[in-house]
Amino acid sequence: LHVPYSPPGYPVETMLERSKDFYTLMNQRRSVRFISPEPVPREVINNAIRTAGTAPSGAHTEPWTFVVVSDPETKHQIRRIVEEEEEINYRQRMGDKWVQDLSRFRTSWIKEYLDVAPYLILVFKQIYGSLPNGKKRTHYYNEISVSISCGLLLAALQNVGLVTVTSTPLNCGPQLRLLLKRPANEKLLMLLPVGYPACEATVPDLKRKPLDGIVVHI
Amino acid sequence: LHVPYSPPGYPVETMLERSKDFYTLMNQRRSVRFISPEPVPREVINNAIRTAGTAPSGAHTEPWTFVVVSDPETKHQIRRIVEEEEEINYRQRMGDKWVQDLSRFRTSWIKEYLDVAPYLILVFKQIYGSLPNGKKRTHYYNEISVSISCGLLLAALQNVGLVTVTSTPLNCGPQLRLLLKRPANEKLLMLLPVGYPACEATVPDLKRKPLDGIVVHI
Ligand SMILES: Cc1cc2nc3c(=O)[nH]c(=O)nc-3n(C[C@H](O)[C@H](O)[C@H](O)COP(=O)(O)O)c2cc1C
Ligand SMILES: Cc1cc2nc3c(=O)[nH]c(=O)nc-3n(C[C@H](O)[C@H](O)[C@H](O)COP(=O)(O)O)c2cc1C
Repeated sequence: LHVPYSPPGYPVETMLERSKDFYTLMNQRRSVRFISPEPVPREVINNAIRTAGTAPSGAHTEPWTFVVVSDPETKHQIRRIVEEEEEINYRQRMGDKWVQDLSRFRTSWIKEYLDVAPYLILVFKQIYGSLPNGKKRTHYYNEISVSISCGLLLAALQNVGLVTVTSTPLNCGPQLRLLLKRPANEKLLMLLPVGYPACEATVPDLKRKPLDGIVVHI
Repeated sequence: LHVPYSPPGYPVETMLERSKDFYTLMNQRRSVRFISPEPVPREVINNAIRTAGTAPSGAHTEPWTFVVVSDPETKHQIRRIVEEEEEINYRQRMGDKWVQDLSRFRTSWIKEYLDVAPYLILVFKQIYGSLPNGKKRTHYYNEISVSISCGLLLAALQNVGLVTVTSTPLNCGPQLRLLLKRPANEKLLMLLPVGYPACEATVPDLKRKPLDGIVVHI
């Protein structure tokens, strides 16, 4: 079944203004690794996840699960798993080159934010689903779809003044999946600690490429 | 160098309201395959791409190139390449199962929107970059980063009342890369036709999963 689609439009002047305002808002986003323990209303997090759930997905498979952890004991177990693996990543797996590429971010395997942030959102991609008849359902382009949905999640968090850091804890997926009791068709894609920025938060002084460094008009 | 980061915050009531409003706006987004030829100001498109360029990326590699095509002849050549490959995809490469999974979207290899939409945005991921010394620079997690940036692009388009359909033209990447004269380190990730919805636009009558189908609280 197909249905008509006629969303409301805006006058051109309004479009220009809205496009500029949204850019200004999103351009203030930074990956923040110092997060305040101050509590955040759960409904704000739920609305951000609802927003993530509006993302497009290959053949409308909606192949995402957002595990929101606020339980301090579970957060601490996540921290232990991540720090243990990340120490090995930094010391052995990543190689000097990668570690050097990261030096300006001053990241390391110590991740205090995993205990401190009021919420950790662990984003799982469902690499397949199941059909009514019990057979496996292919999830086309699941990683791309879930990453797009994370883009919407980041926009939604930024829109309410919350911060996070997009992280991809290398080699921690299987242990975190078991800890969080997720099924075998789910693989960890990202881990996002979420909260208000700590008042002493700092960020690396990065610049973004200008428009003409990322666009080509033909 | 690290610098302080203290973005303005909002009162809790405002956060709740903003989170709900943003969800409502994004939830109106649909993939639209009927696009109006009506012109759209280029500056609105540029602002949407600026917004996409604020996305996080692995080690701040910003591994994206947005090729915006408005030239009718180039759009037509893109259409010919995509339709030729998509016909083979539908008839041979995708298999009955995949074609059946797509039937409810009424998609086919005929893509009129490739001629009609005022802009086609072809999103390339840069699988590696180059260092000042000429050596290759690894782009960690480039596909995930570019997909997140597409999530922001979709949000920016939706925010101004424009529509698109997220598409991944299977097997067209190499030909489109050559047509658009992109270097060998760039691979096509997505093709987004952008414009106002056609007044007779319809969309498949899909429902989205409710919150409790995508979130787990621990
Ligand atoms: C990674 C990805 C690839 C897609 N590929 C195509 C495509 O090639 N052609 C198409 O018509 N739609 C494509 N879609 C759109 C989906 O069919 C659409 O997002 C889904 O049916 C949900 O509908 P909605 O976007 O209106 O919510 C794709 C979406 C994603 C995220
Ligand atoms: C796919 C991906 C993986 C990332 N992985 C990590 C990570 O494991 N740890 C971390 O501290 N930052 C990580 N980042 C954050 C980037 O370092 C950050 O986005 C980049 O330096 C740009 O800074 P900005 O987000 O403040 O604009 C990741 C970002 C992306 C998109």
